[in-house]
Amino acid sequence: MSDVELSKSQRRVVIIGAGFGGLSAAWGLRDSAFAVTLIDQHNYHLFQPLLYQVATAALSPADIAGPVRSVVRDCRNVSVILAQVSGIDVARNEVLAEGRRIPFDDLIIATGARHAYFGHDDWAAYAPGLKTIDDATYLRRRILLAFEKAETEPDAAERRRLMNFVIVGGGATGVEMAGAIAELAKRALAADFRVIDPRSARVILVEAGPRLLPAFDASLSTAAARSLQSLGVEVRVGASVTEVDSGGVSVGQERIEARTVVWAAGVMASGAGRWLGTETDRAGRVIVNDDLSVPGHPNIFAIGDTAHVATKTGDLLPGVAPVAKQQGKYVAKLLRARLEGKTLPPFRYRDYGSLATIGRKRAVVQIGHFKMKGFLAWVLWSVAHIYFLIGFRNRLAVALHWLWNYVTFQRGTRLITGVSGSRMEEVADPRRGTGRPPLRGAA
Amino acid sequence: MSDVELSKSQRRVVIIGAGFGGLSAAWGLRDSAFAVTLIDQHNYHLFQPLLYQVATAALSPADIAGPVRSVVRDCRNVSVILAQVSGIDVARNEVLAEGRRIPFDDLIIATGARHAYFGHDDWAAYAPGLKTIDDATYLRRRILLAFEKAETEPDAAERRRLMNFVIVGGGATGVEMAGAIAELAKRALAADFRVIDPRSARVILVEAGPRLLPAFDASLSTAAARSLQSLGVEVRVGASVTEVDSGGVSVGQERIEARTVVWAAGVMASGAGRWLGTETDRAGRVIVNDDLSVPGHPNIFAIGDTAHVATKTGDLLPGVAPVAKQQGKYVAKLLRARLEGKTLPPFRYRDYGSLATIGRKRAVVQIGHFKMKGFLAWVLWSVAHIYFLIGFRNRLAVALHWLWNYVTFQRGTRLITGVSGSRMEEVADPRRGTGRPPLRGAA
Repeated sequence: MSDVELSKSQRRVVIIGAGFGGLSAAWGLRDSAFAVTLIDQHNYHLFQPLLYQVATAALSPADIAGPVRSVVRDCRNVSVILAQVSGIDVARNEVLAEGRRIPFDDLIIATGARHAYFGHDDWAAYAPGLKTIDDATYLRRRILLAFEKAETEPDAAERRRLMNFVIVGGGATGVEMAGAIAELAKRALAADFRVIDPRSARVILVEAGPRLLPAFDASLSTAAARSLQSLGVEVRVGASVTEVDSGGVSVGQERIEARTVVWAAGVMASGAGRWLGTETDRAGRVIVNDDLSVPGHPNIFAIGDTAHVATKTGDLLPGVAPVAKQQGKYVAKLLRARLEGKTLPPFRYRDYGSLATIGRKRAVVQIGHFKMKGFLAWVLWSVAHIYFLIGFRNRLAVALHWLWNYVTFQRGTRLITGVSGSRMEEVADPRRGTGRPPLRGAA
Repeated sequence: MSDVELSKSQRRVVIIGAGFGGLSAAWGLRDSAFAVTLIDQHNYHLFQPLLYQVATAALSPADIAGPVRSVVRDCRNVSVILAQVSGIDVARNEVLAEGRRIPFDDLIIATGARHAYFGHDDWAAYAPGLKTIDDATYLRRRILLAFEKAETEPDAAERRRLMNFVIVGGGATGVEMAGAIAELAKRALAADFRVIDPRSARVILVEAGPRLLPAFDASLSTAAARSLQSLGVEVRVGASVTEVDSGGVSVGQERIEARTVVWAAGVMASGAGRWLGTETDRAGRVIVNDDLSVPGHPNIFAIGDTAHVATKTGDLLPGVAPVAKQQGKYVAKLLRARLEGKTLPPFRYRDYGSLATIGRKRAVVQIGHFKMKGFLAWVLWSVAHIYFLIGFRNRLAVALHWLWNYVTFQRGTRLITGVSGSRMEEVADPRRGTGRPPLRGAA
C-alpha cells in the first residue's frame, strides 16, 4: 500500500516538530534522496503569529492552521506521524514516541518553546499563556466569560475584578493581546450588554523591562505605547510581577485586582536538551555548533526556538518564524550537500525586519534602519501576514475576516465552547477541581 | 448603567433557549411593551442543519454559530443571560438557573432535544450523537484520529476496524453524515497518507425502518440511497442495531467491526415536561394546547422540539427549524394580541418543503408534491441554507468555504484539537477513564 519504498541505501531523516522550522526543513528535503519522517503531536501546522487573534475572537482556529499532511502532500518522500515524542535514544539513533522507536540517520529537532513562569509554576493556573490553539480557545473562553459573569454579578467589587484584564509581558504577543482585548471590549462588545458597559473594562499591560517591544528601536516602543494608550490600555513599564493568584497580580507594592491574567512573558524551550543530555542555556535552548548541529552529534540538529544561536555581535537570535524557517532550510541544504561529500559555510541569519500590530489599524515595522508606524505599517503588517499564511484558502478567509472585522468592528468567532457545568466557576477560580475543567470541546 | 428600565406595569417574558424557536419568539417581541429575557446555556445561536459539516471538517464552528447578544443587539427590550436552567417554579412563576430565580409573567420554553439511545444509555460512550458544537468537534476529532491511528497500526484487523465508520439512523442527519464521511475519506484525505489508502474506508449507514429519509416521498428515498451508494456508502435498511460497544455494532446476527460509530437515530426532548410536571409523549415532548400553551398554564408555552403538536391528519410535526421558527413567531404574536385583549386562531404549520444533501453535489428536495434530486437540488439546498444563515459574515464565509471545498475537494478545518495525552487511546476505547478525556480545547 505504501508508495514510499525505502531502499536499503536511502538515508533516513527524522524531523520532530511541524512548526516553521520543521516544515521548512521538510520542504528543503523535497524530492531528495532522503526518506523523511515528520513527527508532530498535532495534526496541523499553526501560524503562531496570529494566535492572539483566535484568543480575542477575530479568527477561527482553522483560519490559522492547516493539516500537516496537506502541507507536505506533494513531498512524496515525506511521511507524517502524529505522535508525542518522549525522548531520543542517542546511542541507537532512535526517537521514542508513544511506545514506538523511530530510527534515524539524521535528526532535526524543531520542537519550539512553551511559556515559562520563572520558577513560579503555580502561576500557570491563573495566568494562562498563548502557544497552542487550545491555549487560544481557552483564553477566548476566559475573556468572553468574564464579561458574561460581570453582566449578572451583583457585587460591584467582583464586577470590577471581572472587567480588569492584565497582560504580563510587553513583547509582540503582549502588545498585540492588549490592543486586541481593548478593541474587543471597547468596540465589538460595546453594544451587546444591558447591565455592564464593556467600554469600562480596564486593560493593563505590565512589562518588567524599561520599555515595550525591546526588539524594536526605542522610538517604535514609544509609538506602540502611545497607540495602546489611545485604545485605552494602561501601560506599566519597569513593573515586575511578584505574585499571581486567582484574584489578580501584585506588581511590587501595588495590587491589581483582575480575574483574567494573560501570560506573555518569557518562554522555555522544549525538552530537547534533556533528551540529548547536552548543554543548554537558562531557557532550555540547546547550544549548537555554527552549522546548527549538536556538539558531539554531527547528525543531530536543533533549530528554531529549540536552539541557542548567537550572532557575530553576541546577540541571541530571536524566537521568531523567519529564524526557524531559515534554519530549517539551511539544515536541509547541509544534508543534501553532505550526501554529495560537500559541506556548507556556517548558518547566517538574514534579518528582513520585525513587525507588531496594535489594534485594528496601527502597527510598528522595523526593517534594518527603516522604521514605520501607524496605518501604513498596519497595511504592510497585514499583507506580510496574509502572504506568509500557508494555503490559499486560509489567506482568502483571513483577508475577508479582517476586512469584515475592520469595517464592522465585529468579532465573528465569539463562541464560548468546550464548557461543562462548572462554566462560571472557572472564571471565579480556575484552580477549582483539576485546575482546568473537564471539557469535551475542541477547535 | 442599564438602559432597560423595567416599569412596574411592564410584562416580563422569559424565553429559555436561543435556538430557532427561542430567537424567533424574541424577534417577534422586538419593540413591544414586554421586557424580554432570553436565557441560553451557550453564548451562541447554532445553525444546527449544518452541524454535520463541522463534524466532517468542511466548516469551522464559527461559520455556523453567532453570538446571541449580537443577534438580538438591536432588540433593546431583550436581555440575554448565559446560564443553564435547572427547573421552573410553576407556583411562583420563576425560572431556576444556576442559583438564581428569574421571575416571569409569560414563559416560552424552547429548549430543543438531545439524542436518545432507546434505553441503552451505555451506548452513548461508543456512539456519540450530533446536537452541539462540542459534539461536532468531538466527532471530527474521532473521525480524523481513526485515520491517523490506522496509518501507524501494525495489526491488519485493527486497521480495518479503524477504517470502518458506522452511522446509525437514516434520517437527514444520518444521510448527510454518511455522504460527508465518504467524501472525506475518498476525496479530501485520499492523497495524504503513505501507508493506508483512505479510499478503502467503509462507510455503513444503518436504518431500522424500511427506507432512508422517511419524511420524504419514497422515490426520493430511493434516489438518496442510490446517490450514497455511488459515493461508496453501504446502505442497510430494515436493520436494527441490537448492540454497540467499543469494537463496533451488532445488527441482528451480523457483527460490524468499527471504531467509529455515529448516532443519528432518535431524539429525546429536554427536561421541560419534568420541570412543569405536565404530560409528555414517549420522546419527552410536552403535549400542548392548540395555541402552544401548556395545559393548565395559559402563560407558559412550549415550542420547537420541546413540544408535541399534531397536524389535522394526526401526524406529529417534525423536529425541524421551520416548525420551531413559525411557532416562536406565533407565540410572540399571541402575547402581543393578548396585551390588547384579543386572541388568535390556533397555530397552524405551513410546510414549505424538506431538503437533504448527499455529498458535495447532490441533494433531494420535496416541496409539497414537487420533487427534485441531483445537482440542481443541491444548488437549491445550498442557496436555502446560506440564505437562512444568520449574519452576513457567516453567509459569505460559508459560501466561500463551500465553493473552495467544491472546487478542490479539500477540507480546510481538519484540525484535531482539544486532545490531551490520551489521544490515541480515545479512539481505541472511548470509555477509558471518565468516558471522555479531560480536555482543554474548544471551538
